[in-house]
Amino acid sequence: MKLSARNQLPGKVTAVNMGVVTAEVVIALDGGGELVSVITKTSVENLGIAVGKKVHAVVKSTEVMVAVD
Amino acid sequence: MKLSARNQLPGKVTAVNMGVVTAEVVIALDGGGELVSVITKTSVENLGIAVGKKVHAVVKSTEVMVAVD
Amino acid sequence: MKLSARNQLPGKVTAVNMGVVTAEVVIALDGGGELVSVITKTSVENLGIAVGKKVHAVVKSTEVMVAVD
Amino acid sequence: MKLSARNQLPGKVTAVNMGVVTAEVVIALDGGGELVSVITKTSVENLGIAVGKKVHAVVKSTEVMVAVD
Amino acid sequence: MKLSARNQLPGKVTAVNMGVVTAEVVIALDGGGELVSVITKTSVENLGIAVGKKVHAVVKSTEVMVAVD
Amino acid sequence: MKLSARNQLPGKVTAVNMGVVTAEVVIALDGGGELVSVITKTSVENLGIAVGKKVHAVVKSTEVMVAVD
Repeated sequence: MKLSARNQLPGKVTAVNMGVVTAEVVIALDGGGELVSVITKTSVENLGIAVGKKVHAVVKSTEVMVAVD
Repeated sequence: MKLSARNQLPGKVTAVNMGVVTAEVVIALDGGGELVSVITKTSVENLGIAVGKKVHAVVKSTEVMVAVD
Repeated sequence: MKLSARNQLPGKVTAVNMGVVTAEVVIALDGGGELVSVITKTSVENLGIAVGKKVHAVVKSTEVMVAVD
Repeated sequence: MKLSARNQLPGKVTAVNMGVVTAEVVIALDGGGELVSVITKTSVENLGIAVGKKVHAVVKSTEVMVAVD
Repeated sequence: MKLSARNQLPGKVTAVNMGVVTAEVVIALDGGGELVSVITKTSVENLGIAVGKKVHAVVKSTEVMVAVD
Repeated sequence: MKLSARNQLPGKVTAVNMGVVTAEVVIALDGGGELVSVITKTSVENLGIAVGKKVHAVVKSTEVMVAVD
């Protein structure tokens, strides 16, 4: 499957915090820095997301803002 | 200003493609990899976004998906 | 690639309207009804999206609202 | 009320999973397939969303991605 | 139609800037301040959005960030 | 920091409802009306968001829909 979302950054999961409906997944990017994702708990279970797993963080370009100093 | 958005990655603008309403901004992340952002043309002008400018790419955590192989 | 986005509906592209930065893609769902997507023009080109192509419309669950009469 | 969101698909609620802040609502689309929505628990209560209720799933077109094989 | 989106602020359209695919709509809120919306040009036409028209700006709560000084 | 998000409305926090992963923040806008935000519990803690605090509600323009009667 190829996805239209332009941003697909490789990394490794460093933390998963499970709520009732949603879960927070922390991803250490291969290039440095980290990204936090909030997805459903069911997706965490369906995809077998756990600490140490290699993943990609995926973001649609219309969801990326730009900040300047 | 401190913002609730958890993801704020430093980088440098490598391309700006101006449309009529929106504009596409390509950011080379300091850690490697790039992010593409679609914001309004007015924001590009208001913030003086141009090739070479240091910026942060900012993403709300509810907008980050996770992909596995 | 398996993606955390819970909503992945099969369909066929019935129209593509290209702008300068973004493009509008209309998808007739296999189950009936249609979905309109706005993605970057570059993604349309990268994925070879054109009228008649079989695709999936993909939506993160946090982006789906519910309406009642 | 008419809404600018282009995607408004009719269906029926098949499951509601209540969390503390958010809730997950599963909608069987009239045309087949299902959509999962994450909205606030308060919205579920305000709109009387429950299993069996007829609803529309509503998605802004900028939130729809496209995937190809 | 009642919508799950918690944020529905009344206002009046003060500017419409039409692009090829998208359009920018500026709304002066009844309470003061303004909101800028980017929707499809087709939605602007379908809903008859024009300067002076009374509208509501609608935002899903998961799309609202919080900033502090 | 200056942010590309066009919508930054001043207000005061009137309620915070903490979940496991996410939290709901209600903001009374200075101009009247209120906005509800869902952000992570960690952001609420990091920014010291509490009832009575002055904040800005921030929304990217691509996330704002328009409704007409």
